[in-house]
Amino acid sequence: MNILEIIEKKRDKKELSKEEITYFIKGYTNDTIADYQASALIMAIYLNGMTKQETTNLTIAMANSGQTLDLSSIGEVIVDKHSTGGVGDKVSLILLPLVASLGVSVAKMSGRGLGFTGGTVDKLESIPGYQTGIDISSFIENVKRIGISMISQTLNLAPADKKIYKLRDSISCVESIPLIASSIMSKKIASGAQKIVLDVTCGSGAFMQSKEKAEELASEMIEIGKLANRETICILTNMDEPLGYAVGNSLEVIEAIESLKGEMPEDVKEVVLELGAYMIKLAGKGEDIEENKVRLLKNIANGKGYETFIQLIENQGGDASYIKDINQFPKATYIEKVYSLKEGYIQSMNAKEIGKIVCNLGAGRIQKEDSIDNAVGIVLNKKVSDKVEKDEELLTIYANSKEKLEEAKRRLLEVIKIQDKIVEKPKMILEIMK
Amino acid sequence: MNILEIIEKKRDKKELSKEEITYFIKGYTNDTIADYQASALIMAIYLNGMTKQETTNLTIAMANSGQTLDLSSIGEVIVDKHSTGGVGDKVSLILLPLVASLGVSVAKMSGRGLGFTGGTVDKLESIPGYQTGIDISSFIENVKRIGISMISQTLNLAPADKKIYKLRDSISCVESIPLIASSIMSKKIASGAQKIVLDVTCGSGAFMQSKEKAEELASEMIEIGKLANRETICILTNMDEPLGYAVGNSLEVIEAIESLKGEMPEDVKEVVLELGAYMIKLAGKGEDIEENKVRLLKNIANGKGYETFIQLIENQGGDASYIKDINQFPKATYIEKVYSLKEGYIQSMNAKEIGKIVCNLGAGRIQKEDSIDNAVGIVLNKKVSDKVEKDEELLTIYANSKEKLEEAKRRLLEVIKIQDKIVEKPKMILEIMK
Repeated sequence: MNILEIIEKKRDKKELSKEEITYFIKGYTNDTIADYQASALIMAIYLNGMTKQETTNLTIAMANSGQTLDLSSIGEVIVDKHSTGGVGDKVSLILLPLVASLGVSVAKMSGRGLGFTGGTVDKLESIPGYQTGIDISSFIENVKRIGISMISQTLNLAPADKKIYKLRDSISCVESIPLIASSIMSKKIASGAQKIVLDVTCGSGAFMQSKEKAEELASEMIEIGKLANRETICILTNMDEPLGYAVGNSLEVIEAIESLKGEMPEDVKEVVLELGAYMIKLAGKGEDIEENKVRLLKNIANGKGYETFIQLIENQGGDASYIKDINQFPKATYIEKVYSLKEGYIQSMNAKEIGKIVCNLGAGRIQKEDSIDNAVGIVLNKKVSDKVEKDEELLTIYANSKEKLEEAKRRLLEVIKIQDKIVEKPKMILEIMK
Repeated sequence: MNILEIIEKKRDKKELSKEEITYFIKGYTNDTIADYQASALIMAIYLNGMTKQETTNLTIAMANSGQTLDLSSIGEVIVDKHSTGGVGDKVSLILLPLVASLGVSVAKMSGRGLGFTGGTVDKLESIPGYQTGIDISSFIENVKRIGISMISQTLNLAPADKKIYKLRDSISCVESIPLIASSIMSKKIASGAQKIVLDVTCGSGAFMQSKEKAEELASEMIEIGKLANRETICILTNMDEPLGYAVGNSLEVIEAIESLKGEMPEDVKEVVLELGAYMIKLAGKGEDIEENKVRLLKNIANGKGYETFIQLIENQGGDASYIKDINQFPKATYIEKVYSLKEGYIQSMNAKEIGKIVCNLGAGRIQKEDSIDNAVGIVLNKKVSDKVEKDEELLTIYANSKEKLEEAKRRLLEVIKIQDKIVEKPKMILEIMK
């Protein structure tokens, strides 16, 4: 076996064997296969595709390319939740304490944000003292003791995936269903997930812009889950506008706290209930989806979700006084309300554009090494379909530079489209696939 | 403009502009575009193809990536002759002095052999003293003075082509018509050819194994020639068995000398006459192809081609006494005749296999840096379609190692297929395309 034959086979649209895929992943991880050879193979995969079996073999080979996490000592079914990314997506912060409060064990490793999408780890780190980098034994210990732990990816999980992802980014091969699917699933498998609930976002702020593409990705991941013996459910959700009202790290944490206290934006609630109901089901803690939703609502109303969140924060060294009094979060220097220039109905607000504007305020990273400003961001007052009067408050910008504030204001007024005709409220849950 | 957009465009099967192709070639030549990016683009070109206009732009960009040769001071139309490679191909050695003897200016830069195909420069260097590395002004001066000069590629011609060729070889992207065509044509254009006669070989010993593929390559090169204002004629020739009887550097030089003296193998003669007649036509020295062939035959018969060869050798420092007395060429230590194991008709002798066997005797290079042994090789007694008796002489092996001799003998007896039924004599000229 050699890499030239493997490239040739995929170039000629033939199916690669498990051995060939493993050979490639091992060789590329340990640098015996050169970047330019991997690059040619990746482009051939991009153009000629992969069968479900090939994609599964690629996923497993990548999952096994580094450290893997064994969560079996927890003694419960570990259901992982993952989102394919969005803007204003604070779902994990709300959902995970909530399901934990219903007895679902949560052992969650999250990523940092890059580009226009935020990362759960960044949001957690905006709470002073919160430790995302604790060691694995403490992580497992926490889950056993209080039922939940949320950390960053401390292990060297799926290094082949990292290497291939970086390469894809530099050779215009990002948007490939088998490559995206195997990238997501390899990290889930390496991080010890036994069952997986995937929030497959679609729309302007998502990786998959159309429902068709999102379905294609979902069905690929479900198939990998089946073949790799990790039951996977995909919930396709709308990501055309930002999720909830807040975009920016501290601002989103505050929205999450308020949500857990009962003040949850409708769109966030729809997503949280759907994902939560399926997590409970997969964890074996409740068969009936509608009943599960009722239980989730109950634990919002009775404050048990909120209490679990406080417990999580305290348990990982965070200063829970911030949660109890959100006014303690550092405030941006410039806080300015933006008013509507006209009357009408909000027709659209491109989530990706808003993500970029907020990233530019300092809330996100352009490069992996960039530091981020937790205080900046925006809080919307209106969402798509809402009626707005002329000079009515549209949103508030939180900035630490006057210049950036002005730029954000100018760009936001362009991005938020207002029309005369009534606009229908967008559906959040587009499809459940399993 | 950036390389990511260029890769994306070709990935999506769109046509690249002249500016984009030039940007890529410049960037790759000066190392601002990485190997892995070039690699992804090359694979996308391999799989999605290129229009004739793109291939031409690629050819011109590669031709302009390094030094270029201006032969206009010679004051004659310079017709270049090039073969896509073969085994036992000594055509240039015979053809070029011959057309020069008819007033066609010959300014020829040749390559060295690699792998199973031989190179004209290696053959010339088997004549003691012959200088293939003379400077460009002497090269042009020679052509002006005696009408012919044959040298190696002393200039840094089309470095982008060299770099891309090497990359293609390491990512299984060699067999791509637009990439092969642009590689050949870029070197021809950079070396100052005004008109081009291409010997497009096809068969077991050629790059193009089928006539269809050879036609595809030829039509691509003709189109590039048109668009780049270099009239190009392709002559498709048979390369299923070695050309002529001798394979090996000195042995082929000896066969070329004998050919120029009138003892030319029939298959070699067919090719020489066809290519020569078109070279004369393109040089503006004779419109009628059949008439040109008669003139070529005449200059073999009257020895003028041979005289021009002697003049060429002497003019470039070669010891012409070797030409006049071929017994002076160093002889291999082991010279052994191989006899037929059965009676019948020669059905086939795979040229590529024979090329490899002779290469293994020491006549060729595996790596570019390898030195070669001019004395070794084989001389066939029989060609495809010839009748052979049991125990009749099939060929002679010239070797400098007993072990290699034995191995060559064993392999040659396997490669030369003999059957009972009569075999038709293969046609040498398969098609003329212009």
